Amino acid sequence: MFKECSLNDLSKMDISETEIKNDKLHEECGVFGIYSPSGGEVSKDVYYGLIALQHRGQEACGIAVSDTSGEKGNLKLKKDMGLVSEVFHKEDFSNLKGNIGVGHVRYSTTGGSVVENAQPIAMNYIKGSLALVHNGNIVNANELKEKQMYRGLAHYTTTDSEVLAYEIIGDRVNSGSIEEAIKKSASKLKGGFAVVVMSPRKLVGIRDPFGIKPLVLGVKNNFVDGKGEQGSLFDNEKFDKHNTYILASESSAIRAVGGKVIRDIKPGEIISITSKGITSDYDLCQEKKAHCIFEYIYFARNDSVMDGIAIHTAREMAGRALARKSKVDADIVVGVPESGIPAAMGYSKEANIPYVQAFYKNSYIGRSFIKPTDEERRDAVHMKLSVLEDEVKDKNIVIIDDSIVRGTTMKQLIIMLKQAGAKAVHVRISSPPFLYPCYYGTDVPTSKQLIASKHSNEDVRKNIGADSLEYLSIEDFKYMVGDLQICKACFNNDYPV
Amino acid sequence: MFKECSLNDLSKMDISETEIKNDKLHEECGVFGIYSPSGGEVSKDVYYGLIALQHRGQEACGIAVSDTSGEKGNLKLKKDMGLVSEVFHKEDFSNLKGNIGVGHVRYSTTGGSVVENAQPIAMNYIKGSLALVHNGNIVNANELKEKQMYRGLAHYTTTDSEVLAYEIIGDRVNSGSIEEAIKKSASKLKGGFAVVVMSPRKLVGIRDPFGIKPLVLGVKNNFVDGKGEQGSLFDNEKFDKHNTYILASESSAIRAVGGKVIRDIKPGEIISITSKGITSDYDLCQEKKAHCIFEYIYFARNDSVMDGIAIHTAREMAGRALARKSKVDADIVVGVPESGIPAAMGYSKEANIPYVQAFYKNSYIGRSFIKPTDEERRDAVHMKLSVLEDEVKDKNIVIIDDSIVRGTTMKQLIIMLKQAGAKAVHVRISSPPFLYPCYYGTDVPTSKQLIASKHSNEDVRKNIGADSLEYLSIEDFKYMVGDLQICKACFNNDYPV
Amino acid sequence: MFKECSLNDLSKMDISETEIKNDKLHEECGVFGIYSPSGGEVSKDVYYGLIALQHRGQEACGIAVSDTSGEKGNLKLKKDMGLVSEVFHKEDFSNLKGNIGVGHVRYSTTGGSVVENAQPIAMNYIKGSLALVHNGNIVNANELKEKQMYRGLAHYTTTDSEVLAYEIIGDRVNSGSIEEAIKKSASKLKGGFAVVVMSPRKLVGIRDPFGIKPLVLGVKNNFVDGKGEQGSLFDNEKFDKHNTYILASESSAIRAVGGKVIRDIKPGEIISITSKGITSDYDLCQEKKAHCIFEYIYFARNDSVMDGIAIHTAREMAGRALARKSKVDADIVVGVPESGIPAAMGYSKEANIPYVQAFYKNSYIGRSFIKPTDEERRDAVHMKLSVLEDEVKDKNIVIIDDSIVRGTTMKQLIIMLKQAGAKAVHVRISSPPFLYPCYYGTDVPTSKQLIASKHSNEDVRKNIGADSLEYLSIEDFKYMVGDLQICKACFNNDYPV
Amino acid sequence: MFKECSLNDLSKMDISETEIKNDKLHEECGVFGIYSPSGGEVSKDVYYGLIALQHRGQEACGIAVSDTSGEKGNLKLKKDMGLVSEVFHKEDFSNLKGNIGVGHVRYSTTGGSVVENAQPIAMNYIKGSLALVHNGNIVNANELKEKQMYRGLAHYTTTDSEVLAYEIIGDRVNSGSIEEAIKKSASKLKGGFAVVVMSPRKLVGIRDPFGIKPLVLGVKNNFVDGKGEQGSLFDNEKFDKHNTYILASESSAIRAVGGKVIRDIKPGEIISITSKGITSDYDLCQEKKAHCIFEYIYFARNDSVMDGIAIHTAREMAGRALARKSKVDADIVVGVPESGIPAAMGYSKEANIPYVQAFYKNSYIGRSFIKPTDEERRDAVHMKLSVLEDEVKDKNIVIIDDSIVRGTTMKQLIIMLKQAGAKAVHVRISSPPFLYPCYYGTDVPTSKQLIASKHSNEDVRKNIGADSLEYLSIEDFKYMVGDLQICKACFNNDYPV
Repeated sequence: MFKECSLNDLSKMDISETEIKNDKLHEECGVFGIYSPSGGEVSKDVYYGLIALQHRGQEACGIAVSDTSGEKGNLKLKKDMGLVSEVFHKEDFSNLKGNIGVGHVRYSTTGGSVVENAQPIAMNYIKGSLALVHNGNIVNANELKEKQMYRGLAHYTTTDSEVLAYEIIGDRVNSGSIEEAIKKSASKLKGGFAVVVMSPRKLVGIRDPFGIKPLVLGVKNNFVDGKGEQGSLFDNEKFDKHNTYILASESSAIRAVGGKVIRDIKPGEIISITSKGITSDYDLCQEKKAHCIFEYIYFARNDSVMDGIAIHTAREMAGRALARKSKVDADIVVGVPESGIPAAMGYSKEANIPYVQAFYKNSYIGRSFIKPTDEERRDAVHMKLSVLEDEVKDKNIVIIDDSIVRGTTMKQLIIMLKQAGAKAVHVRISSPPFLYPCYYGTDVPTSKQLIASKHSNEDVRKNIGADSLEYLSIEDFKYMVGDLQICKACFNNDYPV
Repeated sequence: MFKECSLNDLSKMDISETEIKNDKLHEECGVFGIYSPSGGEVSKDVYYGLIALQHRGQEACGIAVSDTSGEKGNLKLKKDMGLVSEVFHKEDFSNLKGNIGVGHVRYSTTGGSVVENAQPIAMNYIKGSLALVHNGNIVNANELKEKQMYRGLAHYTTTDSEVLAYEIIGDRVNSGSIEEAIKKSASKLKGGFAVVVMSPRKLVGIRDPFGIKPLVLGVKNNFVDGKGEQGSLFDNEKFDKHNTYILASESSAIRAVGGKVIRDIKPGEIISITSKGITSDYDLCQEKKAHCIFEYIYFARNDSVMDGIAIHTAREMAGRALARKSKVDADIVVGVPESGIPAAMGYSKEANIPYVQAFYKNSYIGRSFIKPTDEERRDAVHMKLSVLEDEVKDKNIVIIDDSIVRGTTMKQLIIMLKQAGAKAVHVRISSPPFLYPCYYGTDVPTSKQLIASKHSNEDVRKNIGADSLEYLSIEDFKYMVGDLQICKACFNNDYPV
Repeated sequence: MFKECSLNDLSKMDISETEIKNDKLHEECGVFGIYSPSGGEVSKDVYYGLIALQHRGQEACGIAVSDTSGEKGNLKLKKDMGLVSEVFHKEDFSNLKGNIGVGHVRYSTTGGSVVENAQPIAMNYIKGSLALVHNGNIVNANELKEKQMYRGLAHYTTTDSEVLAYEIIGDRVNSGSIEEAIKKSASKLKGGFAVVVMSPRKLVGIRDPFGIKPLVLGVKNNFVDGKGEQGSLFDNEKFDKHNTYILASESSAIRAVGGKVIRDIKPGEIISITSKGITSDYDLCQEKKAHCIFEYIYFARNDSVMDGIAIHTAREMAGRALARKSKVDADIVVGVPESGIPAAMGYSKEANIPYVQAFYKNSYIGRSFIKPTDEERRDAVHMKLSVLEDEVKDKNIVIIDDSIVRGTTMKQLIIMLKQAGAKAVHVRISSPPFLYPCYYGTDVPTSKQLIASKHSNEDVRKNIGADSLEYLSIEDFKYMVGDLQICKACFNNDYPV
Repeated sequence: MFKECSLNDLSKMDISETEIKNDKLHEECGVFGIYSPSGGEVSKDVYYGLIALQHRGQEACGIAVSDTSGEKGNLKLKKDMGLVSEVFHKEDFSNLKGNIGVGHVRYSTTGGSVVENAQPIAMNYIKGSLALVHNGNIVNANELKEKQMYRGLAHYTTTDSEVLAYEIIGDRVNSGSIEEAIKKSASKLKGGFAVVVMSPRKLVGIRDPFGIKPLVLGVKNNFVDGKGEQGSLFDNEKFDKHNTYILASESSAIRAVGGKVIRDIKPGEIISITSKGITSDYDLCQEKKAHCIFEYIYFARNDSVMDGIAIHTAREMAGRALARKSKVDADIVVGVPESGIPAAMGYSKEANIPYVQAFYKNSYIGRSFIKPTDEERRDAVHMKLSVLEDEVKDKNIVIIDDSIVRGTTMKQLIIMLKQAGAKAVHVRISSPPFLYPCYYGTDVPTSKQLIASKHSNEDVRKNIGADSLEYLSIEDFKYMVGDLQICKACFNNDYPV
């Protein structure tokens, strides 16, 4: 059992940067695809689109572009470990010429953190070059991979994305079109996935039938009205080949490159963008959906709209629900920057307790931490966040965060607040306790590291030193996402696949 | 005269990253000095202290350390162009061994942006090695430099900091101590300056007699009480050579390395930290002070306390004063991230209009912009900030920023808000119109570029497309800083020196 | 027709570094494989082995290592563009742990000069990881590749080496052993090739049946006698698993890592090194051989012994044959550094004319040339080589080089000699005129660029400004290589395959 | 006493790259200055000039250029650790615009191996910018430095070059011209030096009165005759401001950039090149000269001519003298590449014993050595040089090198030759035993490391395993350099200063 936390623990509470990072769940990817049928250069839009999706993966990134008017197989590729702004430099773009392109940002677990596993996966196959970007996790990848190996295939990477690419290429030999090959391959897949495939003359997107992973369609350029309304563009309605069409993990990436959001890709939809128009195949669609609730809780950008729900509204509503369910008599509400702030504002409004910006976040902290040796551990939380003392002194405080994984960061923040003179610190979490692993592409610590999966609520409260600790209930998700069908397996062990 | 801004201007409104950067005033430096008389390594504390001061200068940085028990002249130095986390790597610290050190972050105008001009200025002189870090501007540096040259000196850099270093070294030949030499040199200086000098066995700080530039004393290590109270430590009171003493531009840098703030250095004070104790010389102190008001408006970190005033409180008070003076009937208050948010919260509370987080800021934008060519200008504001549409649609909005320099960013933000459906956008600026140049170390655009210095308030309003535009009045500074004597020359042309 | 060269041409004779480089034929690769059955680390031996083979390819390089006692598929790989000493750094070796490894240096034509095409080709296949290095050219690679594509395979690279790897992997599914798969694949190949394959537990080498490309077996470590004699080690004779066995393109690479040369691999031999012993399969061997004569003329290191012939002896014998056939009454013999010197020494001895070191070669020239713009062409020959004036003044000179490709370098050298006061310059080339393309892995300029293929001997002589010009005859190859069966297709259009 | 060397020592004889490097004496610098009075760009000529002088220093390098038609003080500088081709890249030259420039290559002892100590020393002084490059050593630098410090000066570097720069600048305040200031400063100097100073409108060279260090004048461009004759150009004779004038450490650097050598600068001469003409001051010249003999033995390029003596001829003559004095009955003569080869050729001719190229030198070895750890020492000699076995087998060999410092390399080469079957190895050194330190700019190991200073000739012979060992006698220097007055203090303890 945990011992209770006290102020004397400060000196032992040094937390490394890695521990801060590991105290959050991690999305595994962001995808971006773009096609300008009438020509022009798309690589810079891919670049800026990836910058806008950088929060979905910071380990590796890549861009592949091609020219649909050139010979089949003229693909240009660059990918490497690092942030988008670290990997790509001005001079790279003179080598990345083309009017069709895909890009990817990647987060991965330690083992597979090598450049070979970066995406796009790009190969030459029977029909020319193919580049594929993938967000999600194929649960049955190993079965498919083994079958591929018995056919004499070999794998350069250890990713399920390469397995998927080979499956599509293998099916392409006997298919009339790339869309048919993708459908055939997709029908064999289990798991959550949002994929964009660039073939010599087409940009094809697919989303898993449950809609676990997001994918959005957008358009850029010759749109006339400036009002930002979302259009439909099902099956060539209003298609204009002088426009540039975009598929991206989040709506904010489309807007960041000056584009307009059209609509979400439907779960199970295969959408094909060619110079002739946009067409969709819905054969894989099904009744049951299971949109990942963690996109709404934490992953997605606060300014994105996903499957019809504005992310920041969902988060504010979670805060309001939390206030109704777990009100506390406090002087101020504070949020843990940045992810806890929207819910904190909702809590503040619903509970009618003033919201106060009690933490300062150093935006230059980036990758600045020197790897600590045994002798010199660094108080990374302290470097990243500091407390505005006179805002919290002698106050009863409600602190809101979106989730607790290991609890190390929250423990440190409570010590900092109490050292600054806070009378009481009540913790409210705008999601339920995280208890079960995710099989669909979210990097989850082992359950041993999930503080809530091993300890009672009271034990956790004591360990982090909070005066009270309450969570959003699973039932309250309805206030966040209405009647959207969601996957909440990590909270209730009910897996859709 | 400006033409009125309309929504149709969007396509012409592309603003480069440089323009965004140039639409803010710039501080020219941050300084950090540290001394552990009883030994140990200080270079990592300098590193983390500079990370905490990075907002004061992003162009170049440097660290010099020395070992006070070694021979005189054993100084180790590294400095280069770039952010602190870009310049320093793990392996550098094995070369930066020592128990006394100084560090510097630098912002500079384009002309002098070369590595030679980075600080610390480090030289070997008659008494061993000397390293100097400097925030501010010596108005009469050229006069001093010419005299130095006639004595046969030569300059490696084009900085006034090197002139100051030579002046101190020259005076040192005929002085009994480094403190006397510094006093003699300082008495010749005009301008604003906060300087930390590392000589072979001492860390000496000095602040200009007007107190234009800030400097704070702190302590780390063996302090017993955990309450964070500020002590005094004038002339050896409570000095303990097993502690580590720090001089830094801002209190937050002391806290970021795990230290405790003791007090501000007095304007004109020369403080000397040796293994024997801490002593101060107040001979250069004078009645009149002139603390830079822009530290409170924009430069300093929101979590710093400077000359007794908590920065974030000053900013919130400015927002409250603005609300009393320039109230408007609106639905929501929004702040421009990050610098406009404290004042916006103050405005919201005073005016009793809800504060709304209407902008999303991409924290990965960093140095990501590819230099635009003539054909491909990038909408940098758009990449960095996006609007949460449903928060602003059909709303009357008060938008708060801390200052307007060129007006380009605000113009773009108003277009974005109106495109998202805002009914009206009222601009409130938590400082007066910026009209005159600064001679004390703040980088000011030419008056041609200062939108308020050339145009009437009504013209500016029309140009940026605001429904109304009002500023904080000079008189209202009293709400920010009480009776602290401030320099407000950039607003009223009344220069202290 | 060429105009005659005169001294006035100097100012127009600026030759770029690329032109110097292109004035030589290029080998396309060097391979190195090593296996220490009893454990230990081999990556540094691969590194130093590649340094020793660097002359065979300077564009890209790579190392793959594995641990035969670990799980199958634990391969570590690094490859990149650049010289071996540029690509590999100390820290890389902590990631390259293993007791079996292969390495490669690559030269390639401009088109395929991308990192993806660097070797080793490394993949995971049905039996674990496989890494392959290849020197040579598979003439029928495109046919094999197309068949592979119709089976649903895709290619990451545009190399014939990847095609070969896939062929082996495909054959492995239905084979009892990797050796059988390699034999089956090799029997389908046309062209010249020396290949080393690293499979999870074995190091397998194969040489094309004509022996066009070289491959040598060596041993390191526990050999007792220090006399450097070559052993046999056919089929486990004297095998000791505590030794380390090596396969390399040249004997000098084996000696450079402290090893001892055992024997050349036989043309068509498949040699398999396992922890149990060394065995060979000779089923693909045949009567007819066709060893590449250019290895003896220029490619191989002067200190290598290849198929029983010491390279430097072959070159000296070529010089002697040239002296007998094309004697000239001269004062001194000079060689073009480095490749022309052995033949020049042979010529000198046979003709009894003193050998003089008339050129100084700047060994720091490396990659130092700044790419010339139109205005500023650089005289690259002049930078690289200079003439010792008083050695050549008023002399009748015989200058020896190993070959003439475009003639640009020789033209420049003759101008330099004549400017230094040479009375006459007689050119002797220790190979016949190069007239036909090579299909087996040597990079040959288009015949348009081959000066000898388009112009008469007299025209070439005039163009380069020589007083006489003569070549080694094809018949004289017997003096170089005795009765070794050689491929001389580039001289006489008689292709073995 | 040393134990006798045997073949069994091989395994213990691993020699690191550093040891090879330390087994040679090191020159400390090369200088290059250039001025084109009529305009144009000189930085690339400085670059290629430094490439040609790279053998004189490989640790650091730098280039400073200025525009004599611009304002005084417009100097551009780049310097860093590394080879010339590593430090400078194409893009640097767009920042290095100017028609006057100086450059430097530096070798230094470990202690001062930091970027600050790289040259040119560049500063702004009373007359504008000054850049100085220096080859040599100022014996009384510390005295001068101390006086400077008492005048209030401070030093950024630990070089005597900076002391000299300050001395000139200090004297310039009270001098009518830079030439007068240089003369005044030079008259205070003790030691060996060749210096080029770039002041705002002049390029001034000076050579120490003994002529210890070399300096040569050259011209480029509009010279009419193509015969390479050396002109005089004393005091404006034939001056043409449309030419470009060069001062360089060696004649070969002038020729490498397409220039023509005019003459050596006289010992004690101060030569000034301006837009008006070339003038010299000979007031510091004196009767006694003391040219460094090691330039002829080892330092200078083989193709240079220095003070009237062709380097390669001097070396061949040393070999011939050695053959006369120390003849041995042998089958072949071999030289240690590269420095031993000219003397070996001379020995061969005089002794009428055939010269054989018995070693192969890997030209890619460069900086390729991975720093050895305790467990894994590398046989660096073995990697760099290999023996052509059939050239040496059963032969009695004379091996020639230019000098022996520690003896480690020669010991290893003898082992290699004997392992290859040599019957006897007789060592002949084309310089006398090196016994005393150098105070004029040559890096000399401590006498403890000088094998000849601590041990008898017979002990050294046994230690390196030679069958006989003989040196050139001091008297025989006359065959190398005729009646040129030389400094041979390192051999006979007779110091000129």
